[in-house]
Amino acid sequence: MTRSDMEQADSELQDLREEVADTTKEIIKLVARRIELAKKIGQVKSREALPIDNEKVEDALLEEVLRECKRLGLDQQLGTKILSTLLKESKKAQRARAGKPQLLITPMVMMAKATEIEKSGKKLIRLDVGEPDFRPPKAVLDAVSSALYSYKTYYTVGRGIPELLSALKTYLAVRYDYREAAENQLMVTPGGRFAVYSALATVAAEGDSVVVIEPNWPAYKEGLEYIGARAITIPTTMDEEWEPSPERVKETIRPNTKAIVLSYPANPTGKIMDKARFREIVEIADDGGLTVISDEIYNDYAYKPCPTILENLPKKYILTSSFSKAWSMTGFRVGYSLAPAETTARMLKILGLMITCVPEFVQRGAAKALECVDEVSRNSKAMKERIDATTEELEKIDAIELVKPEGAIYAFPQAKDPHFDSAAFAMQLLEKKGVTISPGTGFGDYPRCFRISLGQPQETLSAGVRKIGELLS
Amino acid sequence: MTRSDMEQADSELQDLREEVADTTKEIIKLVARRIELAKKIGQVKSREALPIDNEKVEDALLEEVLRECKRLGLDQQLGTKILSTLLKESKKAQRARAGKPQLLITPMVMMAKATEIEKSGKKLIRLDVGEPDFRPPKAVLDAVSSALYSYKTYYTVGRGIPELLSALKTYLAVRYDYREAAENQLMVTPGGRFAVYSALATVAAEGDSVVVIEPNWPAYKEGLEYIGARAITIPTTMDEEWEPSPERVKETIRPNTKAIVLSYPANPTGKIMDKARFREIVEIADDGGLTVISDEIYNDYAYKPCPTILENLPKKYILTSSFSKAWSMTGFRVGYSLAPAETTARMLKILGLMITCVPEFVQRGAAKALECVDEVSRNSKAMKERIDATTEELEKIDAIELVKPEGAIYAFPQAKDPHFDSAAFAMQLLEKKGVTISPGTGFGDYPRCFRISLGQPQETLSAGVRKIGELLS
Repeated sequence: MTRSDMEQADSELQDLREEVADTTKEIIKLVARRIELAKKIGQVKSREALPIDNEKVEDALLEEVLRECKRLGLDQQLGTKILSTLLKESKKAQRARAGKPQLLITPMVMMAKATEIEKSGKKLIRLDVGEPDFRPPKAVLDAVSSALYSYKTYYTVGRGIPELLSALKTYLAVRYDYREAAENQLMVTPGGRFAVYSALATVAAEGDSVVVIEPNWPAYKEGLEYIGARAITIPTTMDEEWEPSPERVKETIRPNTKAIVLSYPANPTGKIMDKARFREIVEIADDGGLTVISDEIYNDYAYKPCPTILENLPKKYILTSSFSKAWSMTGFRVGYSLAPAETTARMLKILGLMITCVPEFVQRGAAKALECVDEVSRNSKAMKERIDATTEELEKIDAIELVKPEGAIYAFPQAKDPHFDSAAFAMQLLEKKGVTISPGTGFGDYPRCFRISLGQPQETLSAGVRKIGELLS
Repeated sequence: MTRSDMEQADSELQDLREEVADTTKEIIKLVARRIELAKKIGQVKSREALPIDNEKVEDALLEEVLRECKRLGLDQQLGTKILSTLLKESKKAQRARAGKPQLLITPMVMMAKATEIEKSGKKLIRLDVGEPDFRPPKAVLDAVSSALYSYKTYYTVGRGIPELLSALKTYLAVRYDYREAAENQLMVTPGGRFAVYSALATVAAEGDSVVVIEPNWPAYKEGLEYIGARAITIPTTMDEEWEPSPERVKETIRPNTKAIVLSYPANPTGKIMDKARFREIVEIADDGGLTVISDEIYNDYAYKPCPTILENLPKKYILTSSFSKAWSMTGFRVGYSLAPAETTARMLKILGLMITCVPEFVQRGAAKALECVDEVSRNSKAMKERIDATTEELEKIDAIELVKPEGAIYAFPQAKDPHFDSAAFAMQLLEKKGVTISPGTGFGDYPRCFRISLGQPQETLSAGVRKIGELLS
């Protein structure tokens, strides 16, 4: 290269860089302009007492941005992300004006309050925590302890030990007649929660959206919020027996929607979706190119035929599950996921980055658990009895109505009073009657509902329900 | 409100929204324009064989953007994030043109290869994994097992059980003479890795940067990359004994720098920074409003006075540590962090979202570990002997040079040959001699170096070093 070639390249780069800097500044100026406009909109909205969120406007904007990206040959994911950044900033600007803080009494807040009261020595009836009181199988304790004393106490492979992966394959074959699971499709996680988080983080990026049917476990929304993605919720009502029509699911899908979360039996309603409807929704997902994230953690507490994606695999899928509920192993923090190898590899990268691996001695316990079929059916039978008895007792309370749970480990009654405030009620119940429940607002926009966890012996449950009845009358 | 008021508000909103949509589209158009410019720059660079990354240009741009934000009253964090999104996209566009894939032989890749060979029955000398071979204290096994059989197997508080938090407070008071730790400043994590991840994710957001001194454990960079933040590295050399001057640290700080990671004794060099210099760097962090993230996991393997932030707290700080190394409890996956209560609350939110809690029976073992002082000093003494013996053996190999480790559990020799390729060497060593080491490229830009883990009995270490010498001569 001659000297003048180099000089020419230098000046060429110089010019281009100046243009880049100018364009960048121009973008920043427009962003500032856009926020000014958002503030003005905020002023009008606050003057007219209009809500800040307006999904229709946002959707139209998203469509326009994606169309523009297509026209300009720009990566749509980039457009989605930039729009999401702009929208968040605009809402912040509008909120700062409207000054609208919202305090939620979440299950966590209730639990903290309850723990505080318990510390003072008072005995509470705890119907808030979503955990069975059953003991974990004795064989699991023995397996963990024996693994400990044989020094299974060093680092192990991130995906999970071969013994557990192989036990999971056998389990899926026997329990679900699913024989396709390969080791590189499985991942052992520190609890179902991490399986869910890594699933969401793998399918959705900032600016994307994921469909979540409500009422539901708040972890899906929390995970999406952390990622910067949006949960598009489908709120179902007790009148429709907590089940959305496939049409509504279809309507909900946006151009930036990447996945739909299905979880049956459902927390908190105990709903089990019909297999046929489940399949229809899976087809909608398939048609839209969405991933089905199926959280099947309560599958062993099902009292009518329960759908599973293993029966009819969606085109794109992630199954998440855990040893927490069926084996009553909440405190072992061990779960698993099943997904195509390429998806699992991406989830594994997140796990490796944050956790390295799940303790080997815990994994040995989990492998043993898969053999403890008797304990699982004993737990399942006991839960059925509790659902029956508690439903009967709840139905005697005039002020509430209930759709009898078909599975899971909860009841989710709704007050007949349209102005019922379940958060305030939960606090009163705790303070006056020493009973803890989870307000419906923790699971979506359900101020009239509350969740009762059936993870307690029947006497405790009956005593709790009696006190609920007393406070309601 | 009258009908005409409403109509006026409606049309006002309508106009504003149209303007918002136009501004948004204008932004997208400029983004596309900017990417076109980036592609052109890529063409010139590829023609002239210039590198894609150009930190000076990026820094200048960041300064301009921040100045523009200030001028326009725009949140600087927003400007940082938008610029980061644009830069990433530009680099993608340039790379697509340059077609420059880079394959790193990371510790993980080496480990997978080694595991594969071991499966075939061949016995390897494993000097790659950063884990001591010592047994965990017997009292810890007993504590975990006993907790298991007393059914400490249910959900527990996210922050950590009171027994462990209180044991940690006592430990910090006795071991470091630090008496200020409050329970709400502590958090129990599933391993030091999660403490590090949640620390980074709490102090840095997308577009931010964090200073990392290299060579170093890759987890810091991996965590930052996941968050979308940038690690600004300070590469140190063997000639300067792996220690950066405070001036260089100061120069490295950018307007978007939020933290500096310090970790002494260091992995992989075994370097312990002078307390005085450490304090100077902490002061630089204090002056710049940065958080000091101090990873003190190897503090019990220190053979000269080792700095700790507990001696002189920085204004903003997060200490991360773990039971993995000192107590040889890698496979228990339990660590902890100490930070101001408000920072800990934010880290706790991430932990609660992804993990719920660390198993209570594991936490009971960790609490017991804190009493096992004898085992820690036995481990520390044994490691000192290994460092001495292995250094002596390595010094006999002509082809390499070494700065004797002052702590930690590694040696990090450097080949005298300036064209040495440690990744290729590591592969050869594995295939020809059955010895695994970690190539220096896993810890930064160190193709001439490799890491030997001293987590093996001396005979094994000596045999491994002998084989290294054989292959090098």
